[in-house]
Amino acid sequence: MATTLITGGTVVSATGASAADVLVDGETIRAVLAPGSELLGVDLARSVDRVVDATGKYVIPGGIDAHTHMELPFGGTAASDTFETGTRAAAWGGTTTIIDFAVQTYGQRVEDGLAAWHEKAAGSCAIDYGFHQIVGDVNEASLQALRGLADEGISSYKLFMAYPGVFYSDDAQILKAMQVAADTGLMTMMHAENGPAIDVLVQQLLAEGKTAPKYHGVARAWQMEEEATHRAIMLANLTGAPLYVVHVSAKQAVAQLASARDAGQNVFGETCPQYLYLSLEEQLAASSDEWGEFEGAKWVCSTPLRSKHEHHQDELWSALRTNDIQMVSTDHCPFCMKDQKELGRGDFSKIPNGIGSVEHRMDLLYQGVVDGQISLERWVEITATTPARMFGLYGRKGVIQPGADADIVVYDPAGHTSIGVDKTHHMNMDHSAWEGFEIDGHVDTVMSRGRVVVDDAQYLGSPGDGSFVKRGLSQYLL
Amino acid sequence: MATTLITGGTVVSATGASAADVLVDGETIRAVLAPGSELLGVDLARSVDRVVDATGKYVIPGGIDAHTHMELPFGGTAASDTFETGTRAAAWGGTTTIIDFAVQTYGQRVEDGLAAWHEKAAGSCAIDYGFHQIVGDVNEASLQALRGLADEGISSYKLFMAYPGVFYSDDAQILKAMQVAADTGLMTMMHAENGPAIDVLVQQLLAEGKTAPKYHGVARAWQMEEEATHRAIMLANLTGAPLYVVHVSAKQAVAQLASARDAGQNVFGETCPQYLYLSLEEQLAASSDEWGEFEGAKWVCSTPLRSKHEHHQDELWSALRTNDIQMVSTDHCPFCMKDQKELGRGDFSKIPNGIGSVEHRMDLLYQGVVDGQISLERWVEITATTPARMFGLYGRKGVIQPGADADIVVYDPAGHTSIGVDKTHHMNMDHSAWEGFEIDGHVDTVMSRGRVVVDDAQYLGSPGDGSFVKRGLSQYLL
Amino acid sequence: MATTLITGGTVVSATGASAADVLVDGETIRAVLAPGSELLGVDLARSVDRVVDATGKYVIPGGIDAHTHMELPFGGTAASDTFETGTRAAAWGGTTTIIDFAVQTYGQRVEDGLAAWHEKAAGSCAIDYGFHQIVGDVNEASLQALRGLADEGISSYKLFMAYPGVFYSDDAQILKAMQVAADTGLMTMMHAENGPAIDVLVQQLLAEGKTAPKYHGVARAWQMEEEATHRAIMLANLTGAPLYVVHVSAKQAVAQLASARDAGQNVFGETCPQYLYLSLEEQLAASSDEWGEFEGAKWVCSTPLRSKHEHHQDELWSALRTNDIQMVSTDHCPFCMKDQKELGRGDFSKIPNGIGSVEHRMDLLYQGVVDGQISLERWVEITATTPARMFGLYGRKGVIQPGADADIVVYDPAGHTSIGVDKTHHMNMDHSAWEGFEIDGHVDTVMSRGRVVVDDAQYLGSPGDGSFVKRGLSQYLL
Amino acid sequence: MATTLITGGTVVSATGASAADVLVDGETIRAVLAPGSELLGVDLARSVDRVVDATGKYVIPGGIDAHTHMELPFGGTAASDTFETGTRAAAWGGTTTIIDFAVQTYGQRVEDGLAAWHEKAAGSCAIDYGFHQIVGDVNEASLQALRGLADEGISSYKLFMAYPGVFYSDDAQILKAMQVAADTGLMTMMHAENGPAIDVLVQQLLAEGKTAPKYHGVARAWQMEEEATHRAIMLANLTGAPLYVVHVSAKQAVAQLASARDAGQNVFGETCPQYLYLSLEEQLAASSDEWGEFEGAKWVCSTPLRSKHEHHQDELWSALRTNDIQMVSTDHCPFCMKDQKELGRGDFSKIPNGIGSVEHRMDLLYQGVVDGQISLERWVEITATTPARMFGLYGRKGVIQPGADADIVVYDPAGHTSIGVDKTHHMNMDHSAWEGFEIDGHVDTVMSRGRVVVDDAQYLGSPGDGSFVKRGLSQYLL
Repeated sequence: MATTLITGGTVVSATGASAADVLVDGETIRAVLAPGSELLGVDLARSVDRVVDATGKYVIPGGIDAHTHMELPFGGTAASDTFETGTRAAAWGGTTTIIDFAVQTYGQRVEDGLAAWHEKAAGSCAIDYGFHQIVGDVNEASLQALRGLADEGISSYKLFMAYPGVFYSDDAQILKAMQVAADTGLMTMMHAENGPAIDVLVQQLLAEGKTAPKYHGVARAWQMEEEATHRAIMLANLTGAPLYVVHVSAKQAVAQLASARDAGQNVFGETCPQYLYLSLEEQLAASSDEWGEFEGAKWVCSTPLRSKHEHHQDELWSALRTNDIQMVSTDHCPFCMKDQKELGRGDFSKIPNGIGSVEHRMDLLYQGVVDGQISLERWVEITATTPARMFGLYGRKGVIQPGADADIVVYDPAGHTSIGVDKTHHMNMDHSAWEGFEIDGHVDTVMSRGRVVVDDAQYLGSPGDGSFVKRGLSQYLL
Repeated sequence: MATTLITGGTVVSATGASAADVLVDGETIRAVLAPGSELLGVDLARSVDRVVDATGKYVIPGGIDAHTHMELPFGGTAASDTFETGTRAAAWGGTTTIIDFAVQTYGQRVEDGLAAWHEKAAGSCAIDYGFHQIVGDVNEASLQALRGLADEGISSYKLFMAYPGVFYSDDAQILKAMQVAADTGLMTMMHAENGPAIDVLVQQLLAEGKTAPKYHGVARAWQMEEEATHRAIMLANLTGAPLYVVHVSAKQAVAQLASARDAGQNVFGETCPQYLYLSLEEQLAASSDEWGEFEGAKWVCSTPLRSKHEHHQDELWSALRTNDIQMVSTDHCPFCMKDQKELGRGDFSKIPNGIGSVEHRMDLLYQGVVDGQISLERWVEITATTPARMFGLYGRKGVIQPGADADIVVYDPAGHTSIGVDKTHHMNMDHSAWEGFEIDGHVDTVMSRGRVVVDDAQYLGSPGDGSFVKRGLSQYLL
Repeated sequence: MATTLITGGTVVSATGASAADVLVDGETIRAVLAPGSELLGVDLARSVDRVVDATGKYVIPGGIDAHTHMELPFGGTAASDTFETGTRAAAWGGTTTIIDFAVQTYGQRVEDGLAAWHEKAAGSCAIDYGFHQIVGDVNEASLQALRGLADEGISSYKLFMAYPGVFYSDDAQILKAMQVAADTGLMTMMHAENGPAIDVLVQQLLAEGKTAPKYHGVARAWQMEEEATHRAIMLANLTGAPLYVVHVSAKQAVAQLASARDAGQNVFGETCPQYLYLSLEEQLAASSDEWGEFEGAKWVCSTPLRSKHEHHQDELWSALRTNDIQMVSTDHCPFCMKDQKELGRGDFSKIPNGIGSVEHRMDLLYQGVVDGQISLERWVEITATTPARMFGLYGRKGVIQPGADADIVVYDPAGHTSIGVDKTHHMNMDHSAWEGFEIDGHVDTVMSRGRVVVDDAQYLGSPGDGSFVKRGLSQYLL
Repeated sequence: MATTLITGGTVVSATGASAADVLVDGETIRAVLAPGSELLGVDLARSVDRVVDATGKYVIPGGIDAHTHMELPFGGTAASDTFETGTRAAAWGGTTTIIDFAVQTYGQRVEDGLAAWHEKAAGSCAIDYGFHQIVGDVNEASLQALRGLADEGISSYKLFMAYPGVFYSDDAQILKAMQVAADTGLMTMMHAENGPAIDVLVQQLLAEGKTAPKYHGVARAWQMEEEATHRAIMLANLTGAPLYVVHVSAKQAVAQLASARDAGQNVFGETCPQYLYLSLEEQLAASSDEWGEFEGAKWVCSTPLRSKHEHHQDELWSALRTNDIQMVSTDHCPFCMKDQKELGRGDFSKIPNGIGSVEHRMDLLYQGVVDGQISLERWVEITATTPARMFGLYGRKGVIQPGADADIVVYDPAGHTSIGVDKTHHMNMDHSAWEGFEIDGHVDTVMSRGRVVVDDAQYLGSPGDGSFVKRGLSQYLL
């Protein structure tokens, strides 16, 4: 297979940066070398098939987005990105692996749900992908199925404390699933919001005629995220299962996670770019354009955007620095306004929940480096290295080291990226939640398992480049 | 210069482990490579001057012991290890860098204190060394001297809240020094014990005839460590200076550090092997041999060994896992029983404070891996990578990556180490604080800047192999 | 009506003690006077109908036991004390008011449940009584009924987070009820244990053949009490409803309450004598007599007795001192071993839950005074004054002051009480959970609304002496 | 002696309010009676010498201001209120007992300091008074003197962690004093600010030309109050001494107190009206009148007024509700602007520290009742009952009960009080820190030991009415 030498760049790892060249041989990294072409008498640059000049640029492990929902059926429609369009957009943005969620719906077998997702993804993806397993119906059969998941390369599963009647698990179900997880080593991922209580508030707001998108944020009060987070922690404590809380948005939930970690429990949290940058007042309650007061629908997601007056964003950035939040995923779940989000016109509870960000996560977090919120190495850690360790991909993904998959991004700190539907946007959406964001950096080159799929603003890959990746157990446990 | 290929081993970093070979060229690492001798047509093993076979072994960055006191004058005597004996013992134990403490005593110029330590160390050391600067007399001149320290490659200084009349700084002095630190980026290292209060207790115990070594531990109550830790945190909070608390032994002090970090403050803590393994009851109060009730003097150090009944050890291990404690140094400060420790016979306050551990840190912490207390990668992180980042050595030290100094240890997990004066002991002491400890692992080969200094149970180096290392500012700040 | 002068005693209030005489006129207290019979020319002792000599004794407000379950149907049987036997036993023990729980069962109207309890109690009670309302079926009708409760003199209602299929309310129901409570001022009382999760553990233990009483304590893990306590606090926080958590037994639940109170929330907690004195190991796991390993059934109650190794008792006493726990009730719910507790032989989950203590609360807590756990005034506060304030009885009950009901106990600190079935026992039970307890004090005289009902070890009252007391809203809110 | 009947009022205690009459006989309360003049055949109103009609008004125990500094020498001048003027102003405001501070200065004997204060106060006071003892020079002699204090009726002493060179004690001195306190039962009162650190900031600000009063608040940063509070708590924890922190102003210090109390330690806190109502921005930084930017000098006190943007006031009110702060004193330490405060023109550090409030405490706190911050009974508790219990006066003071001193205030909730130099002001000051404050209530009648000293806006007492009160040990310990 072909060999490539990436020269002149600064290789960034989770612990620091150094000038180094990277030699790729076929699909994997063969060596990381001190700069200088000659090695034991060999002129490396001349010996390889291709040289990528990364001078002045960062060479980083490809991003791992551990939370996406391509083609997810939701609320009578489905997420607008297919595995093809969504993974291509991811590649454009420097993400070389996604972990999507296979879904077992109520009444269905887990195995069938997983098989369906394999089918959707197979042959379509631009980059490598794995699956977490959503368990929407915890029963004896699905508990048994959980025991076999790790052998399928699915080392994590997700439960919902929200969405009664859809994905919701009650505490008895959660307890049983966590017992299996403690036994098998599976990571329990939790959507931590008290759904039954929230649904009461939703119905009350609607009954009062409060139907606009912003009431989505009112109904999903921070107390209900904090509460569910704590409850999940205690159930995990009781069973000994490791816990990973998805899309943390409330600072009070962060405090619960921090407290459990200080006490030595295997509890982890993920946040998403929207909680770091967007707010209830500035986006969700937006009412300034053609969509009238319905424009906020673009930012209807769960957990919801929080009030900027309560300083959740500052606390989330701080938690990213102190490792009380360990990583950032997107919860990419795109819906168009037309025909999709607008299903909820006149009833915010019918707006499909989700924001599309898979293309922009690496850029948005890099902006955090530029803004002084996080260090350069922390950027790599929270977008690639920790996601890999958390979900059993490390060694193969998430790090630039010999033997690892050659998932590599050349990132230009002197570049610039303007986000918007008419600009860098490759997601299958008729709008962008990030319209107008300007990033002081740019994804120049993206290599996926040794293949350059994005370069010089051109997409060079094809559907099916990406393969399913079997994951091992978490490598991040205390 | 000579080239070496370390083959067949498992390279361990702070984030994980992988099979890889390491190519050393002269004093630095030239490349890290996937296993397999052939590279672009070159047979590496044949092309290098020397091959080290690390099959079945761990290849790790050489240990960095960030807290040693070679030849330290203390209590009318001096630490029994010279820079020559102490650094040689360190090398035997897989430590390839120490950061020792230059001392400014009361009335002395900082510059003169530093010069004196340069003189002691120059030409004597087996491995590379740096200095922190103890400031024992905070005044206008020393504050001015602090401003020039970073240029000397000294990016950290230490103050004492204990030892009134010797090294003690009062809060006014601490505040002034921290202001300079906030301004210059220096790391403030703090001996956090309330010395004035402790000294009252010491005098009272002696007056009551309680003169045995164990009363050292009684006098230095945990409340006085917790208190001083909190005070240092608040002074750091007021000034914005980063803070590093040395030799944390009380779980309550850990809680103070954790709380400050959760709040986003740049506060760090170090513990030492003695606090992880030894206790007031089992060692300090020991009275079973020729030394009679004075044997405990071997374990008189400050902060003191804590009561095993209060579970400090468990909490310290837990804090190492959760990163509420970031690293482990030794506070190596050896004194012989004869002529040194025995100065305190009949008056525990005259026992020179200190334990010798520089030789055993890597082994003792590896035992923590074997015992399931920490992961393999965490072992590397807390003994090498974080010390390097904390004190501005990363890139050159603390990591196996191209361009870094070839400070490399081959560690054999199938080996065994018996600690004791008549066994592995190379420190200049007439006893060992660790007598009888058995380690399920062994330091096989130690390379310091490309030179093999320990191999096959032979010491191959000579005094002066090690050089002074200028350090940059901390690379670990939030 | 008759007048009584209680002379020579020490009147104890929630804030202190003083030598004072108490003049009772009919059913109420007419005056509290400095000692000395002559008042403005009148010889008081000669002018009254009766003089009670309390020299050397404490004169305290009659105890208020705010948590009893007379005649409660439970698990196919019913609590063995009727209102007649139970209130008489209470009187014997210095308690002059109980607040029992009227029960709305699933499918029943709240009003009918309340009416049924009025019927049970009317004409039977030895002392005054009030009702809390258990709401076992939160629906639109019962929510509406809640709005009328305060007018009935029922200012508090209770929900259960445990016992699915019996009294259990889910979070949606709790939220709705709390909204009504916030609106009306009703106090929400909560049985805070995660019932659905606990029931999983119960079934698993039984399936493993672990059927003995001690497994009751294993199944009801502290995490499930702590969790539910926190959840109730957050739902209360969201709605603004005041919250009172019943029978707190786990120190971790105490910490949740303390934290919420420190943050200024109207959150309160009650503990019971059994959690202060008894433990999983010493009682619940008892197996030393005729009952074989089933003897522990005597102490099966929920929340369960906790492990003595975890120091819950110390923390509960401490919380009583610091007011993190505000009061002590009994949760009196007696069942005989014969025909009742033994229903659970071979299946701990079928053991009726409950301990009988209504007779001994004042004594057991006074022993806490003798043992130095609480002060004399705190004894009065946690057994009478705070219960009165908490539940809207203060002014009429819970305090010795002019105008208050003459519910007065003369307590002899030089007396002695031996507890046991053959001794002071007046509860309708075939055993005592407190067999063998010796108390350094004695209830000498008990006056209920001006009538002496217990004196000189004689019971002088009759069924129907006690009346239903309408309660106002809580007088204890922050 | 004369008898008085106070009729028709509502007697308020720390636990509630009730309609009751109070019969005073000579200096003490003879009886508290249910309303209704006839008692056992006697017409009370006709039998007494005087009837005070309290219809529609509150009858409360006279206020106890446990923190005043009459005639205190400070900064080259002395507090402008003498014991005569200050106690008269106190009486006007419904305070019937003060506890002032006798001062031992450096080099002086404690006994001599106490004697000097006895001399100042004797024969001058309008109301009863006690003393705490300031120990400004902890040494062997003063420690010995502490042991005799309780016998003198002085059951509390105060140390300063601020004011180096004046009252300052270092930690060794504090530890020694607390050991004596733990042994004798004395309450340790602490001025908790890190003086040495603050003085560094003061000197730096002055050197920068920042000399205006507002810099007083800048220099005395909250971190330095929080720190010293924590340090005092830990020294108290080590010794077992009860601790009372004076003039708590920072919410972070409140959190330290709350945390120690939750852990069961005997730690208490007092705040003052100025911290509840005034702020750095609104008063201390005031610059709007004839005094130019020096007007803020009126509000220079230590601890300082805090920033309103940090919400300290809300937290202090909340802590008063939750009993994390137990009581409110004034720290009355008045200085005139002319010749006194103006000593600090051009150098804020020379402004005498202090605010005069002894006249207004009862009113200002009653306004808290009107504003819904505290309940009516909590008002009585924090201004009279708890101060009495805290400092060993309860039974005699702080409560309306038979046998207690007849220190009684009739407070009119329908009255009104306008505070200002030309209005209700009776303190010896040329300004009021409370100018313009309007209170929805009014002190109508003040009785001190049975003598009506204020009535119908007339002062009826004379110097020397008040006597020195010997206090017992604290009655408020956990």
